[in-house]
Amino acid sequence: MSKLFIVGTGPGDLEYLAPKAQKSIAASSDLVAYGLYLDLLGELCKGKVHHDLPLGEEIGRARLALDLAASGKTVSLISSGDIGIYAMATLVFELLDLELQGKETGSVNSNKWLDVDIEVVPGISAMQAGASRVGALLGHDFCTISLSDLLTPWQTIEKRIHSAGQGDFVVSFYNPVSKKRDWQLNTARDILLEYRPASIPVLIGRQLTRVDENIVITTLDKLDAKDVDMFTLVSVGSSESRHIINGSKEWVYTPRGYSKKL
Amino acid sequence: MSKLFIVGTGPGDLEYLAPKAQKSIAASSDLVAYGLYLDLLGELCKGKVHHDLPLGEEIGRARLALDLAASGKTVSLISSGDIGIYAMATLVFELLDLELQGKETGSVNSNKWLDVDIEVVPGISAMQAGASRVGALLGHDFCTISLSDLLTPWQTIEKRIHSAGQGDFVVSFYNPVSKKRDWQLNTARDILLEYRPASIPVLIGRQLTRVDENIVITTLDKLDAKDVDMFTLVSVGSSESRHIINGSKEWVYTPRGYSKKL
Repeated sequence: MSKLFIVGTGPGDLEYLAPKAQKSIAASSDLVAYGLYLDLLGELCKGKVHHDLPLGEEIGRARLALDLAASGKTVSLISSGDIGIYAMATLVFELLDLELQGKETGSVNSNKWLDVDIEVVPGISAMQAGASRVGALLGHDFCTISLSDLLTPWQTIEKRIHSAGQGDFVVSFYNPVSKKRDWQLNTARDILLEYRPASIPVLIGRQLTRVDENIVITTLDKLDAKDVDMFTLVSVGSSESRHIINGSKEWVYTPRGYSKKL
Repeated sequence: MSKLFIVGTGPGDLEYLAPKAQKSIAASSDLVAYGLYLDLLGELCKGKVHHDLPLGEEIGRARLALDLAASGKTVSLISSGDIGIYAMATLVFELLDLELQGKETGSVNSNKWLDVDIEVVPGISAMQAGASRVGALLGHDFCTISLSDLLTPWQTIEKRIHSAGQGDFVVSFYNPVSKKRDWQLNTARDILLEYRPASIPVLIGRQLTRVDENIVITTLDKLDAKDVDMFTLVSVGSSESRHIINGSKEWVYTPRGYSKKL
């Protein structure tokens, strides 16, 4: 059996792990994932062979998962969140595409990849965990933009931020900062400030649904990269998003306009 | 106990229902949902009081859920997909906002809504189910646009489609057609054709993960509203999305560009 599950495990708390993802991992002999993700899964990973590669070795991890599955194993390639959103799934298909085109894949066994039965299992992404924690920030049209310019030219990213501003989408920024990237988020904020009020609500969600979860609701003008790290999701409201306070509870939501009908 | 769970149950197959959602429903005495969603949940709903209102009565359903919870019950308000994405969650907060502002809510008991403990439970949305079924269509920046102009002026929707085209986002269209709305999707297609090639891949996913699931991969120029109904998600690739064929398997993915590093 040559089987590769590509599995998203949700934001962190196992209460958001779909049964399909749980069963895919349980059916696998080998798990390929960044160590932190496996730590979050705990017991579920017991008795499996773990294959870890350092952060930054994403393409190597996808190649290893394909090679292991091609050798006849049942393998789960795992990311937190939705593995189809800014995560490992697309790398597997990039590699498969190279092999189908007869290009160099970096593996001597890549001809066998074409026999692997691949199944992608989606998970709940950080933007969804964040939006639900504060109410319904994704209640109307939204977009996601990765601020990592390691693989995408900054010019392309900047164009997308302008488009998001023009279209008045709720914007979720993935990969907002890293140790080496500290200026992109503030530039993105300044671009959005050209299109929407300084006072619109912004969600800064760190380690969402995990034990050290921290959620801050602020405004666009106060968004600052110094308050954000690699474990943080930033979602910026549209011009219609609202921040409401009910006693000790705060909510942020983006209306669809139903209440106008009342 | 005045408790309102606002629960997304995922695309349909219970294998994608998060334990958190399952437990929220189990803990409730009363369920408020469109009947079809409860049918999908089957056994899980047994022994609960069901409250149904016809499609189109969304605001009434949210009001009913708040009223029931305010009367001391534990209630689940349920949608399929992610209830925070084009679904019921935002209506609850629209109503709460009206009450906080002292405006008319349509309920004589709405002052008690402010005491309800509200918890939103996200689910896997149709775009994620669709993308995972065909590979990794959401692998890079994407947006979602609802084509329903019942509450949002068509001018606003059209502006967003142009922005999505300019930004070269993967675009998922929710509410692409209905019995009364048949021209919006083809207009949206024609707008996107101004910005990206006619040959880019498009996913038409009907009843995703359900027993009568039907998935078609086509190209942007061949997208036609006559092939789409209310149970369908349409996701249009960016100019970088690729459609690859490996024997009897077809995949669509949007690269992040890792393979360029090889």
